[in-house]
Amino acid sequence: MVRSNIPNIVVGRIPLYLRELTEMAAEGKVITSSQELGQRLGISSAQIRKDLSQFGEFGKQGTGYNITFLAEQLRRILKVDRLWSVVLVGAGDLGHAVANYGGFIDRGFRITRVYDIDPSKIGQKIGTFTIQDVAAMVDDIQKERIKIAMLAVPASDAQSVTDMLVEAGIQAILCYAPVSLKIPDGVKIQYIDPVLRLQHMTFYVP
Amino acid sequence: MVRSNIPNIVVGRIPLYLRELTEMAAEGKVITSSQELGQRLGISSAQIRKDLSQFGEFGKQGTGYNITFLAEQLRRILKVDRLWSVVLVGAGDLGHAVANYGGFIDRGFRITRVYDIDPSKIGQKIGTFTIQDVAAMVDDIQKERIKIAMLAVPASDAQSVTDMLVEAGIQAILCYAPVSLKIPDGVKIQYIDPVLRLQHMTFYVP
Repeated sequence: MVRSNIPNIVVGRIPLYLRELTEMAAEGKVITSSQELGQRLGISSAQIRKDLSQFGEFGKQGTGYNITFLAEQLRRILKVDRLWSVVLVGAGDLGHAVANYGGFIDRGFRITRVYDIDPSKIGQKIGTFTIQDVAAMVDDIQKERIKIAMLAVPASDAQSVTDMLVEAGIQAILCYAPVSLKIPDGVKIQYIDPVLRLQHMTFYVP
Repeated sequence: MVRSNIPNIVVGRIPLYLRELTEMAAEGKVITSSQELGQRLGISSAQIRKDLSQFGEFGKQGTGYNITFLAEQLRRILKVDRLWSVVLVGAGDLGHAVANYGGFIDRGFRITRVYDIDPSKIGQKIGTFTIQDVAAMVDDIQKERIKIAMLAVPASDAQSVTDMLVEAGIQAILCYAPVSLKIPDGVKIQYIDPVLRLQHMTFYVP
């Protein structure tokens, strides 16, 4: 598998397959098929077989996929067979929700530090986290070789914080601010803007 | 423009163009080009021209796009030249963040009701909202002809709440729970699962 040869859109579907396989395993299932997986996800079985074939050979013709085995392989491919440390920047309402979210740890990610720029927030607690001064962030990230950041700051602060994260060596940013950020080649970014999703759907609502 | 003929993936980029045009207008810009828009978004200018051409003719060769005019047209195309009422189901940490988020109203959406299933939460306040009993939800939605819902409930409750929303006549669901839901043809759904985005990026992190 040459990672750079695999279309980005295919890579983007693998986490979805992994999530559904994990759910199937939790239901006690042992074997599945591309048909069953496709039906549960609303994706064609041909698409699923084609996507998986980019990464290797995971099942035998006619016998289906062993769910635990396939999930393990996908975790390895996505590099979430380990636990990544993540910094969270922004301790507003959304930052609180992200910091308290219990769904990261089982899927490869652990928030280790929470930062804010607002002096009145620094030192306060979110769950088990103490909100830290963003001024210490670059040093902390470099010292701890953290590669991933989540950005829950206002749109107006997002670019300046991103510049700091990039300077610190962050390789992947999940941005909750509704903006398009400038980042150097090689750094990955993904955006979560609920309004983009809502506006996509209203196009179709009669 | 025949809406069903336009590829879904193209429709999905229009809200992004609209967001960037709105940002440009706020910066005081009057005219832009597909080159400038593309550079700001990290999308090729050819792609932008091709996408926009699916919906009509918005600029003259060589003179660029009038930003305010194009933004207005895109708002009309996406049907966000009006204000959609939205119900929010789930008043946990994430529900609080969504209910308090100030970024919906300017972009076509207004949360009008917040529901939860937990008796200890019903009657409590989130900002100006009073959390209401999910038992009243189907009636309320039908009476008020609400078409859009946001789902911020635990994964284990997401399907049962979705079934209620569909029964009530909801046409579009934005789901924050990390699950794939069964919905009838014709109802639109979009998902926000930050872990899928993080796992997409770790594939590429050295």
